[in-house]
Amino acid sequence: MKTYLECIPCFVRHSLDVGRITGADEKTQEILMREVLINLSKIDMSKPPPYTAKHIHFLIRKITGNPDPYKEIKIRHNKLALKIYPKLKSMVKKASDPLNSAMRLAMAGNVIDLGVKNNITEEEIEKSITKGLSQPFIGDFQLFKKEIENSKNILYLADNAGEIVFDKIFIEEIGPEKITLAVRGGPIINDATIYDAKFCNLDTIVSVIDNGSDAPGTILEYCKKEFLDIFWNSDLVIAKGQGNFESLSNVEHNIFFLFKAKCNVIANHANVEVGSYVLTRPIKKNK
Amino acid sequence: MKTYLECIPCFVRHSLDVGRITGADEKTQEILMREVLINLSKIDMSKPPPYTAKHIHFLIRKITGNPDPYKEIKIRHNKLALKIYPKLKSMVKKASDPLNSAMRLAMAGNVIDLGVKNNITEEEIEKSITKGLSQPFIGDFQLFKKEIENSKNILYLADNAGEIVFDKIFIEEIGPEKITLAVRGGPIINDATIYDAKFCNLDTIVSVIDNGSDAPGTILEYCKKEFLDIFWNSDLVIAKGQGNFESLSNVEHNIFFLFKAKCNVIANHANVEVGSYVLTRPIKKNK
Repeated sequence: MKTYLECIPCFVRHSLDVGRITGADEKTQEILMREVLINLSKIDMSKPPPYTAKHIHFLIRKITGNPDPYKEIKIRHNKLALKIYPKLKSMVKKASDPLNSAMRLAMAGNVIDLGVKNNITEEEIEKSITKGLSQPFIGDFQLFKKEIENSKNILYLADNAGEIVFDKIFIEEIGPEKITLAVRGGPIINDATIYDAKFCNLDTIVSVIDNGSDAPGTILEYCKKEFLDIFWNSDLVIAKGQGNFESLSNVEHNIFFLFKAKCNVIANHANVEVGSYVLTRPIKKNK
Repeated sequence: MKTYLECIPCFVRHSLDVGRITGADEKTQEILMREVLINLSKIDMSKPPPYTAKHIHFLIRKITGNPDPYKEIKIRHNKLALKIYPKLKSMVKKASDPLNSAMRLAMAGNVIDLGVKNNITEEEIEKSITKGLSQPFIGDFQLFKKEIENSKNILYLADNAGEIVFDKIFIEEIGPEKITLAVRGGPIINDATIYDAKFCNLDTIVSVIDNGSDAPGTILEYCKKEFLDIFWNSDLVIAKGQGNFESLSNVEHNIFFLFKAKCNVIANHANVEVGSYVLTRPIKKNK
């Protein structure tokens, strides 16, 4: 997906938010904002938003000196999600269709992306999950189920820290033996890295790889060869979150995207309403 | 008031919104956004936001070729306000304290700033006004009343088109003979100009002057001498709206600001909650 003009104010707002989170002083934050504005004035609109976000976060790290602004938030989200894991796991076990239930849980876990505020509570996460589970989703679950059953090698692209605990439940239902889990190659926003996958014990059930890139999505031109080999050799790719949808929505491969459409731009691109839970496939034309 | 870092994303969002309103094609809007970003990367944070907004709107006019993007919206707001004028006028006449009631009406009229969406209806405006009238405001009305009574020359700084119809009712209660009404020197957002003052018949009851500047506020360094003479020779200045508060909040003069605090930055600067209706005076220290 290309970058839309609407993404520009969002990048600026996000940079300010991250600048605040780094704890940098006001003067440093001002320098950061000026650099971000210069960078954005040269933005390549033909690239997906995570491409630009990668470059902005490089500036953020360079200017603030903070290599991982969301480190504590990610740990907190992992811990909160691990705490409610047993409850969710038993919920799925009791469900009439555990695979469907686990997929919806993985979808609902995508709300943690919104929870970048440091003070999100266990109750708030549980409430969001319950709400997410009861909300209808847009997509063809039977087709997805068939593809899962027919696939020998599945690549699962994770999205955020915390959220990967919900992915774990879904992965356990699919059958971890045929899955490789890919995470980001370096800290970026609250996206899951190898650290988070290990923290949440994902490495004990599946093979975990990082994609070699610190973009908040999967920008193939930045990913390492080892990852690309697995990507293209997979029978099926399950891609979580907006960032992966933004980066791969026009890639011709057997991909299913699972995400919550959190903004107008993504919702329009996926042809759904804002707030929808979506299970969708790559879009042929380069919108 | 200086510009805060929080204002930067707001400028970017606003530029996109105005670009859309001009009806310029996507390519032109992209050029505009890039120019705005370059301009903002050099922003003078020591100046109030309307100073920067003036320069951004110069770019908008230059790049889109549209000299007055809000022209139709302003006419529509003027007409809507004129339509409900008789009802509001009779409401004030019947009030136990007509001056207080008229002032609250003028404050409530400041919501029209939010109504830059083209499809605001008469009902919506009426609803906002009624709500505004019933909401408590922060400020010393008795002191304000005393200053009004003691003043021989009052300068009334208008804010938006449409809103000036509500100002008219307040001006009629104060006594138009001692008032000069100042409007912006050129089209900027939905701010009132001479055209709007005449459209709403303000010129039939008071002397109307433009301030010589097309900033969405009152940036004294850009205002014309004729206006500045009236400004400094006035016993009292009544300044409507956020833009005038932003530009004059640190000016040492007998000013009363009347506005609705619509964003965090302004609310913090005025030391009130967002959404408050405020009657306040200049802030001594240069915050």
